[in-house]
Amino acid sequence: MRVLVAGADGYIGFPLCMHLANIGFDVAGVDNFLRRKWVAEVGSHSATPIGSMAERIRAFEHSFGRRIHFEYGDLRDYDFVHYMLEKYKPDTVVHLGEQASAPFSMIDVDHAVRTQTNNIVGTLNILHAIHKLVPHCHLVKMGSMGEYGTPNIDVPEGFFEIEYRGRKDTLPFPRRAFTDWYHWSKTFDSGNLMLASEIWSLRSTDIMQGVVYGTRTDEMLNDHLLTRFDFDSIFGTVLNRFCAQAAVGHKLTVYGSGGQRRPLIALRDSIQCLVLVIENPPDEGEYRVFNQFDKTYNAAELAQKVKEVGNKLGLDTEIQYIENPRIEDEQLHYYNPICEKLYQLGFKAKHKLEEELEIMLTDLSKYKHRLIAKQDQSLPKVGWKD
Amino acid sequence: MRVLVAGADGYIGFPLCMHLANIGFDVAGVDNFLRRKWVAEVGSHSATPIGSMAERIRAFEHSFGRRIHFEYGDLRDYDFVHYMLEKYKPDTVVHLGEQASAPFSMIDVDHAVRTQTNNIVGTLNILHAIHKLVPHCHLVKMGSMGEYGTPNIDVPEGFFEIEYRGRKDTLPFPRRAFTDWYHWSKTFDSGNLMLASEIWSLRSTDIMQGVVYGTRTDEMLNDHLLTRFDFDSIFGTVLNRFCAQAAVGHKLTVYGSGGQRRPLIALRDSIQCLVLVIENPPDEGEYRVFNQFDKTYNAAELAQKVKEVGNKLGLDTEIQYIENPRIEDEQLHYYNPICEKLYQLGFKAKHKLEEELEIMLTDLSKYKHRLIAKQDQSLPKVGWKD
Repeated sequence: MRVLVAGADGYIGFPLCMHLANIGFDVAGVDNFLRRKWVAEVGSHSATPIGSMAERIRAFEHSFGRRIHFEYGDLRDYDFVHYMLEKYKPDTVVHLGEQASAPFSMIDVDHAVRTQTNNIVGTLNILHAIHKLVPHCHLVKMGSMGEYGTPNIDVPEGFFEIEYRGRKDTLPFPRRAFTDWYHWSKTFDSGNLMLASEIWSLRSTDIMQGVVYGTRTDEMLNDHLLTRFDFDSIFGTVLNRFCAQAAVGHKLTVYGSGGQRRPLIALRDSIQCLVLVIENPPDEGEYRVFNQFDKTYNAAELAQKVKEVGNKLGLDTEIQYIENPRIEDEQLHYYNPICEKLYQLGFKAKHKLEEELEIMLTDLSKYKHRLIAKQDQSLPKVGWKD
Repeated sequence: MRVLVAGADGYIGFPLCMHLANIGFDVAGVDNFLRRKWVAEVGSHSATPIGSMAERIRAFEHSFGRRIHFEYGDLRDYDFVHYMLEKYKPDTVVHLGEQASAPFSMIDVDHAVRTQTNNIVGTLNILHAIHKLVPHCHLVKMGSMGEYGTPNIDVPEGFFEIEYRGRKDTLPFPRRAFTDWYHWSKTFDSGNLMLASEIWSLRSTDIMQGVVYGTRTDEMLNDHLLTRFDFDSIFGTVLNRFCAQAAVGHKLTVYGSGGQRRPLIALRDSIQCLVLVIENPPDEGEYRVFNQFDKTYNAAELAQKVKEVGNKLGLDTEIQYIENPRIEDEQLHYYNPICEKLYQLGFKAKHKLEEELEIMLTDLSKYKHRLIAKQDQSLPKVGWKD
């Protein structure tokens, strides 16, 4: 089975390419290295010292004796997308090639526009090229649990039956995304995917993914095979930032009162899910939404977990509550997203938070000099109200 | 009160500028004439022979002795939007400056991308410029009733209280727009407006408008003051196309079985609503959604109305059912959108469909040569499945 991975140079993209190639898929990756450029633009770098794409692929082929095809190109360029699909005729396209940072989208109008146009145009181009060239291809699109926000009712997987004024219909669950341009761009993509399934009978899986954490997958046999790890306040997720802070002996900075509850999943489990999704495509014309996460935690609980694991490893870890640069519900609040469909496909969350944190802190300690070189980067610098 | 109208050269934009200036508002319009270019690109023209913007404004000032300020510029250019808001410091921005055709967005990937990026970037630029320069300004944004699609339950005005699995919340009504990239771009704009109200306390009114029809408003004292009237299959709405066909003795081409039910409103009533919205702004931080229409009709009923009025005027009018180029629910279906908020502000629908149709057909008969010159343009040429 041929899989094309868009965003192959990213945090999930590279380990996914390795894993798919390792278990026998025919894998082609594309990327234009925008994530590397954007992280440099905001003044940071990956904690793990990742090589160029050419070096990483060479290292993988050396260790595993399997190929990963790769081509440099921009998903916003339809001719490139068309060329790639015509060349590889994939059975599945996994689209991870988006600007994925909420704070980046909040820097100014230019970053808001860049985020929304990059994400929307890339997805539109992929949808049109699939329709024209490989109409039976399964599109797996990385969305975000943040598309739903945190409503005061349970969050189903994409659709729900609703009763209103005595009548019933099955409709998309209302999207009231987190309060940033990035998360709204993901809801826009979801609308476009649903439309393409309706008009062209495309088959697609829209993955509402939680926060992904971890530094390791089974294919990372040596340092040349590591994935990137962002810890700055723009591209680092909350758990990444806490781990980086713990590794260099800084206080873990919790935004506001720390009650903001989020769904989380380990990187290895995320890749396990993606393989299940690829191996079990939806029917033609089916637009399928999966909520993809393991457990939910609030920010204060996550800080506490990192503190406990850090202390166990001999790190002197403290927690500091700082003013919240974002506008979000930081008080304790109801949040109950449902995750059933992946379990029905056979998903089993294998990696416990505490175990992964121990691995992350150990890995990060090894690259402490790279964290220290950019240590001011983990403190917030983009305010939502600016 | 200063009002800035984006899209001042458009079907609603120009009559709105005239009416606001006539009743004493300080009006500035902006446009980059893309609608004229796009209509030419698809091979058509306005049935009414409209002059250049400079000529129209001169004609208005000559007849009414009042000024309309105007500046040429592109809403996708943030520097231009910034300049305009700094120069005019409007109390209200009415944003009508979008690509407004569903078939145009379905021509190919380039038109899909142009539609979504034009609409999203223009709105993002306006939101950011208002936040930076005139944070108390009221943004009135033209959305579409098509954002809701036609669900099997009543359609409230933007939000509704929902009960699910024993818990309650007030959430945005689920958006499952009509099946084209254009209508989805409007739902994306709505998401961005809601977000701007949440993070920046902007005040905005998002108007879910029905299909607008008519050739006249009270300010159109002579031919120099007419607004454009599109009748081609790309930019003409269903009723415009029927009227143009009736005026030249062509059969009225109903798509499919004609059961597709839509909300309609006369141009004069739409402008009455917009004035009420401008005069009654929402509170700071309030994101307000109005459904704006008079009555709902299905396509077969509209064709029948045009036939009846046409016959009364001595036009030999027949109806022909043709294959539906679109993918849409064309069977008789439930559709019950709610429109209460505008009536609470004092709205009274004053213009009956039959009366307006008589005026439209009379006006169009005058420009029959312009319809005949492009008569093949009213037949569909863009298929949804292509």
